[in-house]
Amino acid sequence: MSPNYQATASAPVNIAVIKYWGKRDTKLILPTNSSLSVTLDQDHLRSTTTSRADPKFTQDRLWLNGKVDEIKPDSRLETCITEMKRLRKKTVEDKDPKAPKLSTYHVHIASYNNFPTAAGLASSASGFAALVASLSHLYELPVDASTLSLISRQGSGSACRSLFGGFVAWQMGTKSDGSDSLAIQVAPESHWPEMHALICVVSDDKKGTSSTSGMQRTVETSPLLQHRIKNVVPERMEKMTRAIKDKDFDSFAKITMADSNQFHAVALDTEPPIFYMNDVSRAIIALIVEYNRLSRENGGRYKAAYTYDAGPNAVVYAPEANMKEIASLIIAYFPQKAGDFKDVLGLFGAEGAKDINKFGKVPNRFNEAVAQRFEVGAIKGLIHTKVGDGPRRLGDEEGLLNAEGLPKTLA
Amino acid sequence: MSPNYQATASAPVNIAVIKYWGKRDTKLILPTNSSLSVTLDQDHLRSTTTSRADPKFTQDRLWLNGKVDEIKPDSRLETCITEMKRLRKKTVEDKDPKAPKLSTYHVHIASYNNFPTAAGLASSASGFAALVASLSHLYELPVDASTLSLISRQGSGSACRSLFGGFVAWQMGTKSDGSDSLAIQVAPESHWPEMHALICVVSDDKKGTSSTSGMQRTVETSPLLQHRIKNVVPERMEKMTRAIKDKDFDSFAKITMADSNQFHAVALDTEPPIFYMNDVSRAIIALIVEYNRLSRENGGRYKAAYTYDAGPNAVVYAPEANMKEIASLIIAYFPQKAGDFKDVLGLFGAEGAKDINKFGKVPNRFNEAVAQRFEVGAIKGLIHTKVGDGPRRLGDEEGLLNAEGLPKTLA
Repeated sequence: MSPNYQATASAPVNIAVIKYWGKRDTKLILPTNSSLSVTLDQDHLRSTTTSRADPKFTQDRLWLNGKVDEIKPDSRLETCITEMKRLRKKTVEDKDPKAPKLSTYHVHIASYNNFPTAAGLASSASGFAALVASLSHLYELPVDASTLSLISRQGSGSACRSLFGGFVAWQMGTKSDGSDSLAIQVAPESHWPEMHALICVVSDDKKGTSSTSGMQRTVETSPLLQHRIKNVVPERMEKMTRAIKDKDFDSFAKITMADSNQFHAVALDTEPPIFYMNDVSRAIIALIVEYNRLSRENGGRYKAAYTYDAGPNAVVYAPEANMKEIASLIIAYFPQKAGDFKDVLGLFGAEGAKDINKFGKVPNRFNEAVAQRFEVGAIKGLIHTKVGDGPRRLGDEEGLLNAEGLPKTLA
Repeated sequence: MSPNYQATASAPVNIAVIKYWGKRDTKLILPTNSSLSVTLDQDHLRSTTTSRADPKFTQDRLWLNGKVDEIKPDSRLETCITEMKRLRKKTVEDKDPKAPKLSTYHVHIASYNNFPTAAGLASSASGFAALVASLSHLYELPVDASTLSLISRQGSGSACRSLFGGFVAWQMGTKSDGSDSLAIQVAPESHWPEMHALICVVSDDKKGTSSTSGMQRTVETSPLLQHRIKNVVPERMEKMTRAIKDKDFDSFAKITMADSNQFHAVALDTEPPIFYMNDVSRAIIALIVEYNRLSRENGGRYKAAYTYDAGPNAVVYAPEANMKEIASLIIAYFPQKAGDFKDVLGLFGAEGAKDINKFGKVPNRFNEAVAQRFEVGAIKGLIHTKVGDGPRRLGDEEGLLNAEGLPKTLA
């Protein structure tokens, strides 16, 4: 039997260049400042979700990577599903009496991330975006992505930004019901396709503070956060928007690095302090700083920009033209385990797939003393990707639920 | 021949609990905010300086740890010596025509730090304080320590705080000539002698940014620094002064840790960012945070406070009663090389001198997962000391210059 009411969608990861840190409403997930991100290509990193509505289902159920993820009452997951059903009723069923009453059916949902949790990449943004996108197709909602972003925001704040491709702003809004706290697209991926990213997956022995609890501790205890919120971020949002529209990588890089630094500064200004970066993270910063210094000293421009979320992983944004040089530099200081480097965009060709370490190279006149050379494993993986599109609707052949409405076993 | 005009003085190290970071005048060394420190016992850590004036000397000369330290024109060293001569002339020679014209003689100065430079402890504060103290005795200046602090400040900002024992504030002042930017004693060492300190000397592969250049980069580029200066530090100075007068360790600890964190936060908010703490520093913070949490969870008080200057070394302030427990905790996570632990205050007695590592002990119910256990050498030395007195005048038998006015060879 072919399912009647099913839809599958994939959604991308996004990495902020103006950071979200702090909620003014923890239930509705309303932020204390606006933020801005780059959507990464879901050809490489994505969450895929299949949603099915069936009158025979006895409860809403969800599987994440094949394992049951309980939908607890009042959880963020339940909120998103409930809101999507409400939107179905209001925008479809209430207007067309003949429309099937899908909002009254239970749903089965299967979701899958194509990147390992161990990579330390936040999967909640792509996950909630894929959930909302698949339900919006299932329910055939006549709404735009910004409207959907209002709902994915309630699953995970930054998930609202994964509803668009390209360069995306999450406008904090001012209303207490959150109805103006949504994502808008600053520019599509086609505007600046040369924007590439190198994700450096950094080992971390210690389990860090979760961003949910960490950001609220910062709101409660950091004397510097309020200044950031009121006096720093609004201007940076304007300048970053302008930099993106102008494809001005110098300004983009400057603001991206400054805002990553400031996010970690307010985390450190928290009681007790929160550290997400470790010595490896610091060393990557030192390499990028020296790499830019060398270029600018010779009359050139910024060539790369680092940014760090709530963990030790670096994401290095750079124009495509610089990426091979940057990857070579990183590899020179952080040798890779054979086979760990996934050269998905073909920087180093077939030779690179055999032994990436021979491509390690430090630019001429580079001050090699800015960082120590690390052992294999300090960076346990490099992912080269680029700006990408927003959620995609996929065909049923890519569906993750079997005929019985249970998750398929994936190869 | 016995020298006619010579004086020897020693001066202590101080470690700030409200941090100095940023100058509003780099020549006069006028800070952007007031700061407050604890003077550490010079029985353990000190600079000793002998100054001699002799009409036969042909130039001002200085030796640091037995090696020539050139007195360059317009250097901070030259400024201090010139200012001291000026003060001699103004307060002594101009008033008493019979007073020898020492201000017209050249001086020979020998200075010695009893702690290794490799320890990473700032020697400039104790060094300039000892220089100024020895010259003030040589010149028999009828001035108080706050007046002398105006001059040592021009050698190294934090040196002004080493002119007093106990708990010392450097009032930033408002005048452009710096005449009100000086140190005052908040409380003498006798007020709160139970205030002990454990210095954890942390290895660092990488040479960090000097505080002189680092703080000016922060002034020029950190959007958060101005907020700290205007809105955070003034209140902390008041509260810290009150905490010291009340011997309120809870408040002392809370402000000390918050201000250390905030200093490192504004360093991180600098472009490019400045990191002084490393993974070992972070691990020590995690231990102290957990140690305090455990005490407070059980209805108790803060038991220790960490603070970090412009480097990875931790200084842990704590009431004497807690110090053995704290040292045991640190040793449990950071085993010491045999003989490297200097148990100067006799925490562990004769047994400790033989093998300190057997005293490593984690308190009951301590969450041991807050930090990894490190290898021998991650903390390369522990110095247990306490609040101490201000500069001391020493007898000629402790002088560092020989009959010829050259540095004695020290055993």
